[in-house]
Amino acid sequence: MMEEIRLIEVKEEILSDNKGLADQLRLDLKKSHTFLLNLMSSPGAGKTTFILATIAALQGKFRLGVIEADIDSVVDAERVAKTGVTAIQLRTGGFCHLDAAMVSKGLEALDLSTLDLVIIENVGNLVCPAEFDTGAVRNVMILSVPEGDDKPLKYPLMFSICDVLIVNKIDYLPISDFDLGAMRERVLKLNPGIKIFEVSAKNGTGIEAWTGWLEQEARAFIAP
Amino acid sequence: MMEEIRLIEVKEEILSDNKGLADQLRLDLKKSHTFLLNLMSSPGAGKTTFILATIAALQGKFRLGVIEADIDSVVDAERVAKTGVTAIQLRTGGFCHLDAAMVSKGLEALDLSTLDLVIIENVGNLVCPAEFDTGAVRNVMILSVPEGDDKPLKYPLMFSICDVLIVNKIDYLPISDFDLGAMRERVLKLNPGIKIFEVSAKNGTGIEAWTGWLEQEARAFIAP
Repeated sequence: MMEEIRLIEVKEEILSDNKGLADQLRLDLKKSHTFLLNLMSSPGAGKTTFILATIAALQGKFRLGVIEADIDSVVDAERVAKTGVTAIQLRTGGFCHLDAAMVSKGLEALDLSTLDLVIIENVGNLVCPAEFDTGAVRNVMILSVPEGDDKPLKYPLMFSICDVLIVNKIDYLPISDFDLGAMRERVLKLNPGIKIFEVSAKNGTGIEAWTGWLEQEARAFIAP
Repeated sequence: MMEEIRLIEVKEEILSDNKGLADQLRLDLKKSHTFLLNLMSSPGAGKTTFILATIAALQGKFRLGVIEADIDSVVDAERVAKTGVTAIQLRTGGFCHLDAAMVSKGLEALDLSTLDLVIIENVGNLVCPAEFDTGAVRNVMILSVPEGDDKPLKYPLMFSICDVLIVNKIDYLPISDFDLGAMRERVLKLNPGIKIFEVSAKNGTGIEAWTGWLEQEARAFIAP
């Protein structure tokens, strides 16, 4: 599959006005009737599997595209491309997050006029990506059960800036000491408006509630 | 317990010669007969629980200290301080890794002449900490089973610069599709000399083999 993946090398540019560029990007997306979602998490929280489950639920309803960010591989874009969805791989070469300029390059490589909904898989990192507006319409993060219920205490900015928290790998709950109630309380204290969905991307639990929300948000944004 | 934790705020300084400072730090550690270990992983891979298991195995054999790095909390230092071991909390205020200057501040706050072995719990991040020499004598990383066996493909630098890989949460193997053989192959291709220990910090499996290695390395370094 490697030859089918479009690979774009991106570099950090000293950009004083990332926020301004991100706001401009959202205006452009509104004009082209394309919804952009920014998905963030730790390494291994299940971003790619979650994207695949989301694609499976929404294929046919939206024309989908995916921007994969990775330090040094194309394995995620390969997995996505197998679904038939257009996937662009941004290779950050050691860089720890995406900014609006990098996302802008990814969107240029996709033909936005042919897409309704684009998902960004950001670099696996709970720190740096939280600090950079990518131009996405909504920010979503995944916390997986094996990571522990104390993560909101340790990475408060990430939990504060997201519109949605996906609690993934809930199939691990029976053998874990993860306290859902304590986690919820910590998250809602940081971000009272956040939506929380409990899912298992692997076995499909909870995916319908999540994609129901996403469909509604995307339709509202891309409506002419 | 909060009042017993010494909290140090650290900031990034533009330091052109981090490597030079790290080398100097190792010379100072050799002179003071103190072994310094740098522990890195994703958020939620089990660093603190692993440090607690390591402390339990080595208490009485070494005079131990711990430097906890965290963006914005002291929960880890509190857990460590309960064991009676000296714990310093470095609060990085949003910063995504430790460098030699920050570690140097942490070591100044500990009294090195009273310690044989100091463990740094670095910021939970598989990207940025790999790029900065902290001055530690050995680098150790944790990959936990729920994160997946593909992580060496995605974060190659981290796997390349570590002396030891701890595969943690092996108690999750029965309900996971983690392929130990494939993971080993990927890691050894990047770093043929790396030591790999399979452990469960939670239930103690494999901790003795790991602390046996650590004891040997520390004794060799701190010998007069």
